[in-house]
Amino acid sequence: MTGIVTSPAKLSSHLDEGLVAVERAMLEVTDSQVEVLRDASRHILSAGGKRIRPRLLLLTYLALGGGDVTYVAKPAAAIELMHTASVVHDDINDHGILRRGRPSVNAIWGRTFALLTGDFLFTAVYELMAPYQHLNIDLARAATALVEGETLQASAVKNNTFTREVYMDIIALKTASLFRAAAVIGAKLAKADQGKINALAEFGYNVGLAFQIIDDILDIVADEESLGKTSGIDVRQGRGVAVALAPNGNGNAQVIDPVEAIKRKMMEGDTIDKARAQATLLVNSAIAKLRELPESSAKSALEELALMVIERET
Amino acid sequence: MTGIVTSPAKLSSHLDEGLVAVERAMLEVTDSQVEVLRDASRHILSAGGKRIRPRLLLLTYLALGGGDVTYVAKPAAAIELMHTASVVHDDINDHGILRRGRPSVNAIWGRTFALLTGDFLFTAVYELMAPYQHLNIDLARAATALVEGETLQASAVKNNTFTREVYMDIIALKTASLFRAAAVIGAKLAKADQGKINALAEFGYNVGLAFQIIDDILDIVADEESLGKTSGIDVRQGRGVAVALAPNGNGNAQVIDPVEAIKRKMMEGDTIDKARAQATLLVNSAIAKLRELPESSAKSALEELALMVIERET
Repeated sequence: MTGIVTSPAKLSSHLDEGLVAVERAMLEVTDSQVEVLRDASRHILSAGGKRIRPRLLLLTYLALGGGDVTYVAKPAAAIELMHTASVVHDDINDHGILRRGRPSVNAIWGRTFALLTGDFLFTAVYELMAPYQHLNIDLARAATALVEGETLQASAVKNNTFTREVYMDIIALKTASLFRAAAVIGAKLAKADQGKINALAEFGYNVGLAFQIIDDILDIVADEESLGKTSGIDVRQGRGVAVALAPNGNGNAQVIDPVEAIKRKMMEGDTIDKARAQATLLVNSAIAKLRELPESSAKSALEELALMVIERET
Repeated sequence: MTGIVTSPAKLSSHLDEGLVAVERAMLEVTDSQVEVLRDASRHILSAGGKRIRPRLLLLTYLALGGGDVTYVAKPAAAIELMHTASVVHDDINDHGILRRGRPSVNAIWGRTFALLTGDFLFTAVYELMAPYQHLNIDLARAATALVEGETLQASAVKNNTFTREVYMDIIALKTASLFRAAAVIGAKLAKADQGKINALAEFGYNVGLAFQIIDDILDIVADEESLGKTSGIDVRQGRGVAVALAPNGNGNAQVIDPVEAIKRKMMEGDTIDKARAQATLLVNSAIAKLRELPESSAKSALEELALMVIERET
């Protein structure tokens, strides 16, 4: 504990150090003796990604007075790997062929090895977290929620029960829970008091909701190349924000071709704008939770991270 | 800690109590709000299975003087769920349609939900283990080994590199590691000294190797109905003991139709007998490790468990 970082330059150097350690931890724990697991893990990890979850964890930790970013790197790496595992499995179920601007693991190694690579990334999470004993329950519950959210989504598409309410349940489970866990774990590692842990939990949760809403909007509007993953998948499969936020509140029920129907609604309606407005509200609400924190560069960076979520274009 | 159970009747009642608690723990942790996860988990769990891994953990615990079987039930349930998760994912990759005498999760709910159910069972493992802090690394490493073993197997089939040596590597990783973890965790929960933990680790490991060899033999010879899973899958896919133990030591290299080639070798050779002999040696070696333990009903039951592994016919 070195006290709260107040200089922007020092924060930037701490954060960079932490993020480098996160990358190293992810590569080390996935350095399997089994070639295909090592290669496929490196493929997906080296493709980049925003690393927003480890950033959130590191910045929370720094904003609450934590000083040893290398100690925190492993839990931050675990959270990113959990997300990565779900992405690899998601690309199997969605037949996604592009991910982070590269062919997906599924596209290169096929379904069997993609399934096993996802499983492997998951066991890597478990290995990384083993020494961080009191934090396991936070990440374990978020992991369960993530899988439940993915399943609820697949069920809603299959059973044609995709409403705005179901959509919010899905993104709370599949995205916001892991963002919350990142913030909570960062706060706990900094030995924050319960009030601050709770405030950061809400910050993470609301930022996570906003992040997913924007992600779903980008999935609809972004050009395939600039987004770097197979876009429109969520729409073609009858899920995502446009369906859920369509004027009748249950876009799917009367839809035969979801893609066409959603495009039409986008032309005539203000669905996307409404979703953006909701994401902005969520981010404002998240930022309000930070008032309990003392001023610092890390606190400012948390605010910027939240704003970046709604301002990003890819 | 109530001291070592010496009466067979008392042991049987303790073991039964433990196994009931294991079933309850598995049902409780998989009682998801998401219907398909709950239903698919119950489907595979209520189909039974031998529960050999939780038995091994419970008996080890009792043989080393542990007395609170309900405290031990959650780690035992976690180990069984880990195995179950791998089974559900295995049935996706193998197109297995029968499992434990019932349609597989894959056959009923389809690939997407089978993949998610396996993931969910995995997160349930993580949740169950969270309170058992010092044991997480043992189970995490076994989980990684399990996935590595499954992957090595799939790679060996794909790349035609299935030799006896590779076969032994595979079963060590995919089966023996989890058996070892069960015994180690049972011993640690009983607060055994390091010498006894090591002895039980070797016991579990060797029993696990023997278990998998016999499982692969049964996969070849057993009637589909009596085995309760799609049999011959391992053979048709060019893996399993008969390929690895074939006279030339690398049955796959010159094989065009693995099933036919293996059948022929079985007719003319003594491959199966050799594999059985190896399993018997492993079990004898396992039982020898138990000499460090004081005599007790639980110790006898561990010996019986090891012998059952090579004597079972389904």
